[in-house]
Order: sequence, then structure tokens, then C-alpha cells
Amino acid sequence: MKKLISLYVLGIIAINVSCKKQDDLTINNKPSIVVESHDIERVEPGNWWVGFKDSELQLLVKHPNISEAVPSISYAGVSIEKVNKADSPNYLFIDLNIAKNTKEGKFNIIFKQGNKEDLIQTYELKSRVKPAEDYIGFNSSDAIYLITPDRFANGDESNDVNTNLLEKTIDRNNDYGRHGGDIKGITNHLDYISDMGFTAVWPCPLLTNDMPEASYHGYAMTDFYQVDPRFGTLEEYKELSKKGQQKGIKLIMDQVANHCGVEHWWMKDLPFNDWVNQQEAFEDNKPLNNSNHRRTTNQDLYASQRDKDDMTQGWFVPTMPDLNQKNPYLAKYLIQNSIWWVETLELGGIRQDTYPYPDKDFMSNWAGAIMTEYPNFNIVGEEWSSNPLLIGYWQDGHENNDGYDSNLRSTMDFAMQSNISQALNEAESFDGGLMRMYNGLANDFAYTRPKDIMAFPDNHDMSRIFTQLKGDIPNTKMALNYILTLPRTPQIYYGTEILMNDFDKPGDHGLLRGDFPGGWQGDTVNAFTGENLAEAQKDMQSFLKKVLSYRKESKAIHEGKTIHFAPFMGTYFLFRILEDEVVVLILNKNEEPITIDLKRYNEIGLQDKTFKNVITGEDFIWKNSIELKERGSILLTTKI
Amino acid sequence: MKKLISLYVLGIIAINVSCKKQDDLTINNKPSIVVESHDIERVEPGNWWVGFKDSELQLLVKHPNISEAVPSISYAGVSIEKVNKADSPNYLFIDLNIAKNTKEGKFNIIFKQGNKEDLIQTYELKSRVKPAEDYIGFNSSDAIYLITPDRFANGDESNDVNTNLLEKTIDRNNDYGRHGGDIKGITNHLDYISDMGFTAVWPCPLLTNDMPEASYHGYAMTDFYQVDPRFGTLEEYKELSKKGQQKGIKLIMDQVANHCGVEHWWMKDLPFNDWVNQQEAFEDNKPLNNSNHRRTTNQDLYASQRDKDDMTQGWFVPTMPDLNQKNPYLAKYLIQNSIWWVETLELGGIRQDTYPYPDKDFMSNWAGAIMTEYPNFNIVGEEWSSNPLLIGYWQDGHENNDGYDSNLRSTMDFAMQSNISQALNEAESFDGGLMRMYNGLANDFAYTRPKDIMAFPDNHDMSRIFTQLKGDIPNTKMALNYILTLPRTPQIYYGTEILMNDFDKPGDHGLLRGDFPGGWQGDTVNAFTGENLAEAQKDMQSFLKKVLSYRKESKAIHEGKTIHFAPFMGTYFLFRILEDEVVVLILNKNEEPITIDLKRYNEIGLQDKTFKNVITGEDFIWKNSIELKERGSILLTTKI
Repeated sequence: MKKLISLYVLGIIAINVSCKKQDDLTINNKPSIVVESHDIERVEPGNWWVGFKDSELQLLVKHPNISEAVPSISYAGVSIEKVNKADSPNYLFIDLNIAKNTKEGKFNIIFKQGNKEDLIQTYELKSRVKPAEDYIGFNSSDAIYLITPDRFANGDESNDVNTNLLEKTIDRNNDYGRHGGDIKGITNHLDYISDMGFTAVWPCPLLTNDMPEASYHGYAMTDFYQVDPRFGTLEEYKELSKKGQQKGIKLIMDQVANHCGVEHWWMKDLPFNDWVNQQEAFEDNKPLNNSNHRRTTNQDLYASQRDKDDMTQGWFVPTMPDLNQKNPYLAKYLIQNSIWWVETLELGGIRQDTYPYPDKDFMSNWAGAIMTEYPNFNIVGEEWSSNPLLIGYWQDGHENNDGYDSNLRSTMDFAMQSNISQALNEAESFDGGLMRMYNGLANDFAYTRPKDIMAFPDNHDMSRIFTQLKGDIPNTKMALNYILTLPRTPQIYYGTEILMNDFDKPGDHGLLRGDFPGGWQGDTVNAFTGENLAEAQKDMQSFLKKVLSYRKESKAIHEGKTIHFAPFMGTYFLFRILEDEVVVLILNKNEEPITIDLKRYNEIGLQDKTFKNVITGEDFIWKNSIELKERGSILLTTKI
Repeated sequence: MKKLISLYVLGIIAINVSCKKQDDLTINNKPSIVVESHDIERVEPGNWWVGFKDSELQLLVKHPNISEAVPSISYAGVSIEKVNKADSPNYLFIDLNIAKNTKEGKFNIIFKQGNKEDLIQTYELKSRVKPAEDYIGFNSSDAIYLITPDRFANGDESNDVNTNLLEKTIDRNNDYGRHGGDIKGITNHLDYISDMGFTAVWPCPLLTNDMPEASYHGYAMTDFYQVDPRFGTLEEYKELSKKGQQKGIKLIMDQVANHCGVEHWWMKDLPFNDWVNQQEAFEDNKPLNNSNHRRTTNQDLYASQRDKDDMTQGWFVPTMPDLNQKNPYLAKYLIQNSIWWVETLELGGIRQDTYPYPDKDFMSNWAGAIMTEYPNFNIVGEEWSSNPLLIGYWQDGHENNDGYDSNLRSTMDFAMQSNISQALNEAESFDGGLMRMYNGLANDFAYTRPKDIMAFPDNHDMSRIFTQLKGDIPNTKMALNYILTLPRTPQIYYGTEILMNDFDKPGDHGLLRGDFPGGWQGDTVNAFTGENLAEAQKDMQSFLKKVLSYRKESKAIHEGKTIHFAPFMGTYFLFRILEDEVVVLILNKNEEPITIDLKRYNEIGLQDKTFKNVITGEDFIWKNSIELKERGSILLTTKI
């Protein structure tokens, strides 16, 4: 243990060390330097910033018998408002107030322990690197590349195995084992991602999952403040963000407020008796209830309390303790954790896992707190439902009868996903086939802002779109073209561009999260370079690149007006229009050539306009008719 | 032609004739009697009433070259505001104002025709028979019996055939021919309907359908003011209403604002060039477009004008001209027509056909005008969609993004219908089986007032529920029990109680609208008396009677709180609660006996409460568990 040495030294030295303007300090204006000390086992968040709208900060302090200690701080602008004991003696929760004009800097928190020696912990308040308004969240001008990091590219073989962690092996032959992909692997291929036309990456969680098996997926976090060493370091995560920004790629972080991994460090010494749901049973080693997964209980006027409790308090799976966000300390912990990551990584968005599972009032507070600090940020919540009522309910600004506002700018369009997949797999009929897509898109009238809703052909939890569409390339192109032309924020799962699939075992999570060829030393196929890709793969990669590259610059797609026509003769015409840019997407399910009379679309006013085919580069002049040679999609634009 | 003889006679006579208090006459107070005259071919509405909130009345006057005439009226309180010529010379539309305290009575409208003799038409303003507030529309305390009148009971054989009409035959062997059922047949069996526990009847349209074939269904009206003589007379229609009221049966009228029959009298001489959609093509005998039936164009933000026009201006079928409600004279005509019927028949509600097909702004005005005159009335609109977004959109008070308010108190729950039918036909699974019903009911959060929404197992346009459920009696009982216990306004199609079906040709309209046995002289089976009914039919009839009779008195079902529990072990528990009345509906899909632990339902607080089984009359005391012996439904109540 160290002693408090000397907080205040000679003025002349202090001025050298801390020479920034001092006139905005309101509480005292003594300059100071700090002799650093790190006596405490764990203080979280590990640092904070000056200049947030919210002046409160709550520190979780974990240390043997720390509850007996009395903390004090002497730093201009920082005051201890309250010291909260927990149920465990090894925790303190310290409420700080950080006054408006507090300067960045370090200070020591001194824990007086009666007769025992003081404990000293140095804490830092950093200055913020950019204005809050400059954290621009992903939006409809973006196209998001979703990556399972363990399976994308292995940029650093030295971190593949970490014997300090429970899962000690790497095994590329095991679909549920670790394969070695990492942050460096993503950073190394930012040019590929950018060249493809993507403008954001969403890697599945990169924080430590010190779980004995299947730790690769990342959703069983055992430390909310630590990068999994097998994925890399915090510095590498920051580098990914920085380099991404330089290349116009926003970084979206995948966060989980609902649960942690059962090996989370706090599970051995939980701060409160209600830190996780069913805590008593867990601690007594009694059987635990899984969530009933009845997500409608969040909205249902008639839901029983029993079902609501089973939903929010049941564990997602037995290896993932269900966090009790009704505990105000945990709630604060999770909110601060998210803000810490936004600020640390200069994020371009958050994807929040299993959105309807935690306490919904907490989730609204959580999202509200982030969006208050970062007004132009974005968060997308995962509600796996094809019911548009639920998709709409969770988007902020929706007029919900119960008055609920999620503060969530984006929700996920599982309805659209399912409609597209069904529509393309089935024959045309009065309400089926392309009509299913048309009818589905018509539901947009019920959403607050359709373009902020995330649309996707598939994701890391479902069979890949190429598999869903039975290996049919024209249908896959139609699905992609449609999603990328809609008034939506599109997300594409890595490998879609090279027809990655899970035919061998459709829907198998380990399999559909396959290795991206070229991401590993010695891969004979390399999708980054094109080496040994099959022609069909190259074709799809080129197709997607053309569509994405066009989309990247297309204001009409980002924010234009949408007009679509009820499918007719096996074709579906959708228009996006902004000023002089007109984008026409034609989906065609006819196997035989067909000529379509364009009179039907007269109201758009395209007569004699020249279009460019985004894929073939050919010109098309809008006259009386168009010939569609084969099943597939045609993307035309007035502006290339 | 007659002469104007003498509108004003000696005061002494006038006082005898018109001796009601005169002090409320505001314009003049001369007493009058009228010598009646009916020179004009057609004036509609044929009469009107004093005392409406809306003081305007527009008369459609049809007579050869009437446009050349100048009408005048001399009656205290009644003034001609404007005389509107039409495109056809044979029409005038006269805007009247009926001042607030105008008395009931008759007056003559004199049409001056220059050199030609005047035409005189006597018109009557009646007094209203009851206060507007006393027109109580059907609601969740009602159970509605839907009847296809031609197929329910033939109460008057003398009206079966009418050789003045185009369809001249009666043929009970022809599913699409007329079978002879009539208004009298319904009136004769009001006791049966009431005894079954129904509190409202909705007969399909009874107005003249002078169509050459398939006129039995009633939806191709050729006169909006005339009862089809094969169904009876206006007096008989009034008698049905009156007798119904005496027996606690509300009368719901089935109206159609979207279209008429192609043999409608006005089709030979249309008042305006835009009275029906595609009128020019019709008049030139050119091909007509059917509606595209893309009902989402009413809501879709992206719908093309082309699709919107095709939807609202296309004809429903080629034999039904599509009325153009954007023509303000037609709009007014339809609104007045509806009010005329409400007042004439003392209706207990309107069912409006094909709700999303007419101009939606008109429909809102139409419903608004009726609901303004009759604040406690009810109207249900038919939107055949299983999309809850559309069901919700059409109900008044719903927060629609486009600001639309339908003024429609009730919409139809085709979503629920479809969910129930699917749920009972499929095996239990995570989201299938009873969960489909549970999830469907959970959507109620998005409706303005779920209990005002009409729920039904089937109707006159779809396969009968017994057929949909593959002849499975326990499933049919579950469907009925569920619908009759929900927070809804239930509707049951005639014959459901005796397992009427359409197995021979599922979904065939003529067949599913089969003859109700006992409705015809000489029927060997008589469902009214029970004679020769099969045991299964008697059992279903008794079952439904018991449920309906209980429901009739059950305030908990009419307006109680609803709690339901996610289906569990093949069972689904739904509770309706109001004060000390608790209703428990248990649906059970297990073929084998099963014991259900009741702890799960503890929050309802039923321990040791005594229940009565509504069907068997047996007592059940709520203890730790319940044994369910067989697949089916159990309806328990604390209050019999």
C-alpha cells in the first residue's frame, strides 16, 4: 500500500504541468499534479471525460472489504455526492458530480480505512476528442457490412490462442470453435470493404468472452470493458475506428445489455442480491428458468405478470446470466459502459442485442442517455419479429398507446427480410410472390421514419440469403438490389458477395458464420484478391460492388421520394426520385423474355429520359416499352 | 298534370288539421294543409325529418327535362338554398335548408316550367320517433347473428317470384339462384335467434337487386331506397326492426357505398358525367377495368397514383358499376340514404361493405355524418385484411401518421379469424398452434378500442368455420368459445350452430350460404325445433346457446379486464374479470388427459373460489390443479 505523498506542489511546477486556462474552474483553482497510484482491484469506468451534458458519474469500485472505506477526492469541479454500499462488502458505488467547466486531468481517490492504511486510486478525466455533434451515426446513406470477427480474417496469428482464457484452442475444422479472425483482420481489409462500397462495419461483439466453449460468437461477455485478447487490444480496436474514419467507414459496436457470460468476473461476487435475475437460485445452484421468449409481453395489454417476468427475468440461455436492469446501479453501469465505448472508440453507432429482453423502461433510459449526449448518433435494436406492429413500436417517435418512447432511432426489419425470402421462393399469385414485397413495403405508413429502419437479406443468426433462396443467383441479386434501393438503412452480412452459404446444414450457426476465404494465410481461395473464386462468385462480387458504389453516391436512394407500382405481369417497378436523379429498380420473375408497356408509369414523367444500367453500363432511353430478357433485376439511373 | 289548387285555406280548418304548438316556427306561422300531388317521376330521399343536427337536405329530382323547371317551396322553416343542374337534363339537385324548429308536415314543391303547366310534388318532413341518443349501436355486449336472407327462412311464399324483375325464377337446387328466404322469415324466427342468445341480427342486403342472375346475395343494388319485393316490403322491414327491439335484438343494415348493380335505374340516364367511375367507357360500351384490389394503396406512402386510381375507380366486378363518391351530389345522396334508413328502420347499426374501395375521404365524411347525428350508433366497415396495421388504421381515434380518422367505430378482425383457423388446424409449436392466437390477441395494443372490433369465426364470403376446421367439433367449439370470450364484438354466421358446412365445394359462395333447415315448408329437418337434427348438431346448438346466453349477461366479457397466459403444455388460459365476476376460458389441445398446475395463474387470486362450468353446469373449486380430460374448451365462471 502506498501513502498519500503530496497532492499540491510548488506553484511554479504546477504551472508547467497544467498550463491550460484556469478561469473556468468554479470550485477551486489550485493547479495540481498527481502521483499515480492503483491500489484498487477494479474501478469502472476506468476513466471518464469532462464536458458531458450529464454531470453525474457513478464509479463501481471493487476491492476486498472496500465497503468499510471512506473515499474522498480533492479536484476542482469534482465532488462526491454520495457513497453507496452494496450487498457485498467488496463493492462501493461512488456518485460523483463533475461540474460544468471541470478540466481534464488526473486525481487521486483516497479511501480511508480507519486504522488501516489509505488506499489510493488515480482516476483520469479526459478531454473529449471531438464535439458531441460530430458523432454521426449510421443512416440511410450508409451500407453496413456485418462481420463475425472470428471468421473474417486473421490479421494477427500471435493472438489466436490465449492460455489464460478458458477456451484455449483454435480449430478451424470446428464450426463452433475459434478460427482466429480478429480486429487486425478487419483493419487490414478496410480497403476491400470500402472498395466494395460499404460505408460502415458492424463486427459482432469483440469484448472478452472467457467462456469454456463457443466463445467465438462474442455474445457471452465476461468483461464489459475489455477487448477479448484473441481479437486484439483496445488500441487495435481504436485503430480500426480511426482507419475506418479515414476511409469513410463508420464503426458500429455490438453491445449486450440483457446478459453477460456466466464466467463474467462479477458472477463470483455479485455486488447486490438482485444484480442478476434469479440470483438466489443461481447462487444456490438451483434450476434456473430460461426466458419464455414471449416478446409480445412488452406490448400486450393482456399479458400476465407471470409471462412478463418469465420474459424479462428468464435467462436467455443457461450460460448467460440475465442482468437485472431494475437495479439502479447496474442500470447506471450499463449506460456509462456504452457511453465509455462511444467516446473511446469514436463510434458511428451501436447495435444493441436482444432488445426486447431487458426491462424496457431501462432500455428507453439507456438509449435516451446516449442520444442525449450524442444527438446525431444512431442505435439499432434487435427485435426479431416479422410483426410490423413491433418493429414500429420500438422506433422513437412512434405514437404508442402506452406512451412508450424507445429513444431508439433504428429498428430491424425482420418483416422485410422474411417477405423477400418468401416472395422470391414462391410463385406469383394475387397476394404472393412480388406482391408480398409490395404489400410489405406498404406497411411503411405505420413507421415513424422508414429510412432509419435497418433492412437486410440475412444476418449472423439465420441461414444465408443464398441458401434461403435455394442457390438461385438471379433471386439473390433481386433480394440485394431491392434492399439496397429501398428507403432503408441496409446491412449485408460478410461473404454474401461471394455466395457464402450453409447448404450443408441450413441455419446452423457455426456453419453460416463461415470463414471468409483469403482471410487466413495459405487460403487457396482469396476473395479479397479474387484468386480462385468461381466465376459465379466473381460475378456476384462485381454485381454487389456496382450496386453499392452507385448507392453510396445516390441521394435519391438515401433520401429521395419512393413510388412503387403493384406488381404486374411478374414484374415490380420501384422508383426513387430526388430532383433530377431518378432510380428505377425493375424486378422480373419471368423466365421468358417479356416486353413491358411503360405507359403504366407515365406519372413519373420519364418520357425520352436517358438512363444508365448500373450493372451493364448500357444506356436505356425511356420510350414506350422495355424488353426484359431474363429473370432478374435491372437497376437504372439518370445519374451516372 | 295538376294545377296548384289552394295551399292556404280557412284558418279554422288549418287549426284543426295542424294543431301542434306553433310558437317555435321561426320563419312564418301560417298554418297550412296540402293537397297532395306526385307529378315527379322520382324524388329522393322520398321524405325527410325535422330535428337533425344537419339542417341541409339535398333532393335528387328526376323527371324528363326537369332541368328547365324552377322549383319553389312555401313552408315555414324550409328554404331552397340552391338549385343545381346536372349534366343530364332530366335531373335537378335542390339544396334545402330546414331551419332548426321547423315542424313536421307536408308541403308541395312547385316546379315552374315557363309556358308549360307547373309540376307539383308533395314532400313530407316527419317528426323523429325517438331521441338521436337512443339509437344504440351494436357493441361488445352484443352477439350478432349474420344471415343471408334468401337462405334463412321463407316466411312468405307469395313473394318468392316476381315477374316484374329480371331474375324471375326460384330454384332451391341452384346454389346461385334464389331460394325464397325473406324478411318475414327472419321476423318469424326472432324468438329462436333471441333464445339462442343473440342480441343483434345482420341480414345481408335486402334492397332491390334487379339483376338477371345471382341476385340472391343482395350486393348489386339497383335501388337504394327500395326493399327487394322478393324479400318483402318496407313495412315488413320496419316490423323486423320493431319486433326485434321488443325482443332485445338490434337490427344491423348491410349497406354498400362503393357500387350498385349494373341494372340500377340511374345507369340508363346518369345525372352527371362522373356519377360512376369509367363512365365514358361504360357509356361507349368499351372495356372496363376491374379494381386492382390493392387495398394498401389507401395507406401506402409510396403507392402510385395509377394504383390508387385503379383501386378506387376500378369496378369491383363487371356487373357492379363503381360509384364516384368524389361527385359531391352522389356523396350527399349516399350519406342521406344511410341516414334515411337509420331513421326509417330505427337501426341498431350499419355494416358497410367493401370499405377500402370507395374514396376514403368520402367514407370518413359518410361515417362522420351518421355518427354526428347518432352519437351512440355503430358502424362496422369491411376491410378484408389480416394485417393488423390496416385493421387499426380504419378504427376511429387511431393515431394515423397521415392524420386520417375514419369515424368508424368498428372494424373487422380478419386477422383474428385467420389466426384462429390456422392455430387450431396446426400442431403446437413455439410460434404455432395456440401461440398464434395468443400472439394475435397481443396485437390489441395497437388498436384504439379492441372491444369495438368485430370478431367472427367465418362469414358469408368464406368457407364455414366447421369446414375450415376440417369437421373437427372440439376445434369448432374452441374457436367459438374463444371469439365469444374475447374483448370483441362477436358475429356468428347463421347455421354455425348446426354445423352447416361447405365440404362439397369448400369456399363456394352459393354453397356456403346454404338453406337453414326448417326455414322452408316441408323441410324434413328443422333446426328451429330440433326435429331430425343429428346429435352432433343438437349438441353444437346447445353448446352455443349456453355460451351465448352466459355471454349475454356477462359484464366481465362485455367490458372486463383481460389477462391471458402464454400457451403452455398445449393449453391456453384466458381470463376476463370485472369486480367479482371472473370468467376463465381454457383451450386444451391435448388428446390425452392432462393435469395442469394452477400455481402459474396465482396472480389472478382465485384460490378456493367456486366456479361453474358454463356448459356442464358442474362446480369447480380453484385449488392447486385442474384435470383436463379431453381436447376442447372449458368455460368457467364465478357468476351463474
